Amino acid sequence: MNSQTITKSDQKISDIDSYMSSVGAKARRAAREISAASTETKNRALIVIAESLLETEDFLKSENAKDIAQGRKNGLSQALLDRLELTSERISGMAEGLRQIAALADPVGEITDLKYQPSGIQVGQMRVAFGVIGIIYESRPNVTADAAGLCLKSGNACILRGGSEALLSNLAIAKCVHHGLIKAGLSPDVVQVLETTDRNAVGRLITMPEYVDIIVPRGGKGLIERVSNEATVPVIKHLDGICHVYIDRFADKEKAVNIAFNSKTQRYGTCNTMETLLVHQQVAALILPVLGDLFKKEGVELRGCARSCEILKAISPAQDEDWEIEYLAPILSIRVVESFEQAIDHIEAHGSHHTDTIVTENITRARDFIRQVDSSSVMVNASTRFADGFEYGLGAEIGISTDKLHVRGPVGLEGLTTKKYVVFGDGHIRT
Amino acid sequence: MNSQTITKSDQKISDIDSYMSSVGAKARRAAREISAASTETKNRALIVIAESLLETEDFLKSENAKDIAQGRKNGLSQALLDRLELTSERISGMAEGLRQIAALADPVGEITDLKYQPSGIQVGQMRVAFGVIGIIYESRPNVTADAAGLCLKSGNACILRGGSEALLSNLAIAKCVHHGLIKAGLSPDVVQVLETTDRNAVGRLITMPEYVDIIVPRGGKGLIERVSNEATVPVIKHLDGICHVYIDRFADKEKAVNIAFNSKTQRYGTCNTMETLLVHQQVAALILPVLGDLFKKEGVELRGCARSCEILKAISPAQDEDWEIEYLAPILSIRVVESFEQAIDHIEAHGSHHTDTIVTENITRARDFIRQVDSSSVMVNASTRFADGFEYGLGAEIGISTDKLHVRGPVGLEGLTTKKYVVFGDGHIRT
Repeated sequence: MNSQTITKSDQKISDIDSYMSSVGAKARRAAREISAASTETKNRALIVIAESLLETEDFLKSENAKDIAQGRKNGLSQALLDRLELTSERISGMAEGLRQIAALADPVGEITDLKYQPSGIQVGQMRVAFGVIGIIYESRPNVTADAAGLCLKSGNACILRGGSEALLSNLAIAKCVHHGLIKAGLSPDVVQVLETTDRNAVGRLITMPEYVDIIVPRGGKGLIERVSNEATVPVIKHLDGICHVYIDRFADKEKAVNIAFNSKTQRYGTCNTMETLLVHQQVAALILPVLGDLFKKEGVELRGCARSCEILKAISPAQDEDWEIEYLAPILSIRVVESFEQAIDHIEAHGSHHTDTIVTENITRARDFIRQVDSSSVMVNASTRFADGFEYGLGAEIGISTDKLHVRGPVGLEGLTTKKYVVFGDGHIRT
Repeated sequence: MNSQTITKSDQKISDIDSYMSSVGAKARRAAREISAASTETKNRALIVIAESLLETEDFLKSENAKDIAQGRKNGLSQALLDRLELTSERISGMAEGLRQIAALADPVGEITDLKYQPSGIQVGQMRVAFGVIGIIYESRPNVTADAAGLCLKSGNACILRGGSEALLSNLAIAKCVHHGLIKAGLSPDVVQVLETTDRNAVGRLITMPEYVDIIVPRGGKGLIERVSNEATVPVIKHLDGICHVYIDRFADKEKAVNIAFNSKTQRYGTCNTMETLLVHQQVAALILPVLGDLFKKEGVELRGCARSCEILKAISPAQDEDWEIEYLAPILSIRVVESFEQAIDHIEAHGSHHTDTIVTENITRARDFIRQVDSSSVMVNASTRFADGFEYGLGAEIGISTDKLHVRGPVGLEGLTTKKYVVFGDGHIRT
């Protein structure tokens, strides 16, 4: 088995185009079935999949071991091998995630804003599934269960394309998913995991609007840029997070220190981690030294503007590009700003419109920041690390959208649905 | 002045790329201003624009007369010349439309679903403008005022590109718009009408995501397909309407006849006009003859399946392609179906997912139809002609979206906005 053409039931998938068309056609048929499935049927499938994952732990681990052995042979880094591994804890985690999705309210079929109009017709909007969702992701096999669960509950069929290094693990998880679908009386085609790692399969997946309604890429910048540039299907993008904490002149010192420290150090590798700290000039000398000591103790490298370098010792001068890097590492850029307006200008000019927070006790500043900063999450006196579907009460998330169209910020079940207008009349005609 | 390179202030726009970049950069700057403008400022601008249109009626008409003279020289059809004409009535209509937009509630800044989460943070969503909207439309100059008004009220800057045959009329309307913006203390760059009819300007407009956030094409299928294929900016599409009326076995005869007749004949050229009538076999012999007579009197040409041809006399056999044509004319295709399921299968296979209605007194059929038909508007016992922003209570519309992503069906002020998450804490950090 090589990484270019993985076998399907030990037979080569030689014709990727016709394979993908067949997967697409099956998904399109299954979409109609799952969109009309009852809440109870969908929940039953989710629960059986969760049970099945726990029951087949040994099989999952042995298939996963083969992926890991192959990965080691291919020279994958230890970090990637760690992400790839399916431990008992991670398998329980997948099962628990599916049970949580089963416990969420069904978004499909909800009718809102049903109102009588002057003509006498009653008009409202019904939440409905998209149809078929294609999800492209990297390395971590537990995404297979999460994504399958979210699509299933939101009434969508899905086509999943995981990382090539996790193929056998993903296919093993797919077996559990199919078992659950069948037990609930649903077609196994509701969730299809691609049985090939051929890169051309991705190229086809994102250019078949006749079968696929939206694409959700989850992974590094390279993947997302490729998908965005080549797709002819709408894409819900999850781009980088260059997140800011702005410590205002009217900030409470303790809150400012806690929020800035937490936003940077609670986890380094996440998109909602702070990458740049902005501090108002009137409080910089008071707050930066305290933060500098804390960051130093934590091993965070600091890069600052000229004024930060005057105030702090353990800091190096920031280069222009430092304001636009998503470090995803224990590195932080710091800039002292002259005014509230300069802070907002900096965020708008250099940020990625992901998550930005102001620390202030002044309600006018808070209201202006919330209104003026054009990011998917705008916060007052809270750590940027809260930008997350679970923390926002969505119950689960497929990612964090940096797009403006359709869905912005954490994407949960509702983000995977759309709405149609419903009209009730009693023989009404237009005059 | 020729139709390829219209002059800007009598100077040739020789470099379209740099002209478009300059327009884009101005729009981007203006977008920040208009997104933060108060409701009162925006309403004031709308009212002054309306007044200005009425006051400059003579100028509008004289500029319009030049477009019409040029159009006649270029051999435009009488129908196109009619659409192009700015009469006193149409000018009053534009002014009245702007006053109606001023009277609508401001969608920008509305915060919904603000809820405390277990961590103690308060999370909600704020409705915000997109930024810059590009609108590409054909012939009718009154779209210039409508589109400007909708974008202005929804807090967006816009770049308008009307039909080349209406350039002088559109620029004259733009003068009134700029007058109103300036009077209200806003930048005239909030609404820019392109001063060139060079086709390359459209090519550039739809491929500059750095300046333009979404594109709304309004026009024929050719325009919309070109824009969809070439755009690198998200597009809110308005495709064709192959709308169905399905007369169920449990239909009330009188309602069925009224709805089918109204859906076809109230206006022929609109996208929500019925193009195919489906009739359940058990009521076909009862209802079709009545409808056949009515349509005959109205001069509607009928094309039917074999069974309709047995029941009706003044009908010709339908070809396969008849089920997928948007006639936009007094032509109707008719099919007798064996069952409710076959009706839905027909709509899903041949329709354009625009607007479809069932006529039935049976609540189970009504619920199933509403749930199963995947169209932007799904109706029970109402004419398809109701699919319209005004009839739905949106107050105004920029078009009817046949996209699933973001906005589906009539697009009003809300469809021209998006949402961001807002989070309020009191020093909250994540643990």
